[in-house]
Amino acid sequence: MDQHFADRYIEATRQLKNPLCVGLDPHLERIPTEFGVRLDALGSEQSAAGVQAFFEIVIDVCAGKVPVIKPQIAFFEQLGWRGLRALERLVARARERGLLVILDAKRGDLSSTAQAYAQSYLFPNSPCRADAITLSPYLGIDSLKPFIEASLAHGVGLFVLARTSNPGAADFQSLLIDGVPLYERVAAALAPSAAALRGSTGWSNLGVVAGATYPAEAARLRRTLPHSLFLVPGYGAQGASVAAALAGFVPQGERLEGGMVSSSRGILYGEGPVAGSASEWRAGLSERLDAARRELSEAIALAPEKVTLRSIPPD
Amino acid sequence: MDQHFADRYIEATRQLKNPLCVGLDPHLERIPTEFGVRLDALGSEQSAAGVQAFFEIVIDVCAGKVPVIKPQIAFFEQLGWRGLRALERLVARARERGLLVILDAKRGDLSSTAQAYAQSYLFPNSPCRADAITLSPYLGIDSLKPFIEASLAHGVGLFVLARTSNPGAADFQSLLIDGVPLYERVAAALAPSAAALRGSTGWSNLGVVAGATYPAEAARLRRTLPHSLFLVPGYGAQGASVAAALAGFVPQGERLEGGMVSSSRGILYGEGPVAGSASEWRAGLSERLDAARRELSEAIALAPEKVTLRSIPPD
Repeated sequence: MDQHFADRYIEATRQLKNPLCVGLDPHLERIPTEFGVRLDALGSEQSAAGVQAFFEIVIDVCAGKVPVIKPQIAFFEQLGWRGLRALERLVARARERGLLVILDAKRGDLSSTAQAYAQSYLFPNSPCRADAITLSPYLGIDSLKPFIEASLAHGVGLFVLARTSNPGAADFQSLLIDGVPLYERVAAALAPSAAALRGSTGWSNLGVVAGATYPAEAARLRRTLPHSLFLVPGYGAQGASVAAALAGFVPQGERLEGGMVSSSRGILYGEGPVAGSASEWRAGLSERLDAARRELSEAIALAPEKVTLRSIPPD
Repeated sequence: MDQHFADRYIEATRQLKNPLCVGLDPHLERIPTEFGVRLDALGSEQSAAGVQAFFEIVIDVCAGKVPVIKPQIAFFEQLGWRGLRALERLVARARERGLLVILDAKRGDLSSTAQAYAQSYLFPNSPCRADAITLSPYLGIDSLKPFIEASLAHGVGLFVLARTSNPGAADFQSLLIDGVPLYERVAAALAPSAAALRGSTGWSNLGVVAGATYPAEAARLRRTLPHSLFLVPGYGAQGASVAAALAGFVPQGERLEGGMVSSSRGILYGEGPVAGSASEWRAGLSERLDAARRELSEAIALAPEKVTLRSIPPD
């Protein structure tokens, strides 16, 4: 089997001293016009080539600085098959550069269909081979089995939606079943598999998505899933603070660890209006990336005055 | 706006006198070897070309005989970008032949990402333009809004997962919240939008997926969503009877109506071992299709001795 995803991630985050995950979300209207993305012709060769060129730069800037990137497949699907081709090439490029790749796909389907999704992204011979994937639990635990088997066989990482960061997440995820919210029921149902998928660092290949906008819930999830990595979206553009983003992290050695904090728009495009020239954008990209790395790096360092959020240790 | 999906579906099913939806699921190992699909090279041109040729025949056989087909995108994704290209071509071919196309994608994501998925499949300029799509509700009602807006603007159909047909569906979908199962809470949350998306036939563009293996639950969903079309998977290969598949249908004119009954493997490949030659397979395909159409056509006809499953009428 390939090396264990969570172990590789933990080694990389310890070495680079930050848990930053850069989301690759092609918000097409914010990509500098020099890249030639055509909003009136999303399925064109030109648009896919522009998106690919844009993210080749992002990947090259990220390599060696952050442990992991997270392409959002929806933004490539909107470009049609040429978008998927660009995604395949970008995923391969990122892995060649030593970046781990979590494919943000939120797939969830039953039996043979789930198997087909696992085959699509998680097998050594998959056309678009990622290191990990995000999954939706609505269809039940049996719908996750093909992915868990892929993890056992090939060491890949899985991140199941538990508590997402959008306002409407409460509609169903927070409904109480005998006093326990649904997302906690999901977590509890995952716990045995999470325990079975631990690596040599103690961390598991079965993680969860835990939105940074609800830190109290992340802390609660940590109790149910002590060994799972938390993929935390919502830092930056979605408005969550760095302390909130780390609510599910635990002290481990010199730092807090236990997941990755994702930022997409805040790093790729910055605040304000559409980026100017490609060269201005590129300079800003490095600055924004370094600022986010620095902020997270400081926040996870276990200087006593900063360690205000503690939780159950992973072992 | 384009013509209303539910109206078009209802007109087609009345004219063809059957509610059969043929699922296009490329179970690669069951496609006759003459098509050249290579299990050892899923991402190859040859595999994608083989799958495309196989389904071109299926589409041509289905045209004029059934109202709708349902490609399962996972099985195309496993072929990489060439699989998506084949899917785009097949969807276009089916629509040219007068078939409606429900893309079985079970997508579900938040705000701008949901918007990107809607852009991918539901807009007039989408590279892979379908007539309807399946969606997952786990992220909440706000995650469905971009799709509901696409439906208002472009007349497309939406089928949200309520109660699926797999054994593990009960893990979360049937959990009781104040005595009401989760899938019913999902249905109740959809009801206002479903009412707002009705067409001239009275049926709504906002439907649900309601597995045929749980007919009592389909009947219950019908009470909550009187105007929604039910996409019923699980007929045929998954073992549900035709009576169970029609549990959510209601008398309307001379027949039961209110949804579409999907069959994939049972029609495409039949029982037993791998199909023989392409010509044998093609002959069998027509026979299996006609048998399923006949069975469903008889089951929905309102001869008194057959009308055992009644429900609340749509108006």
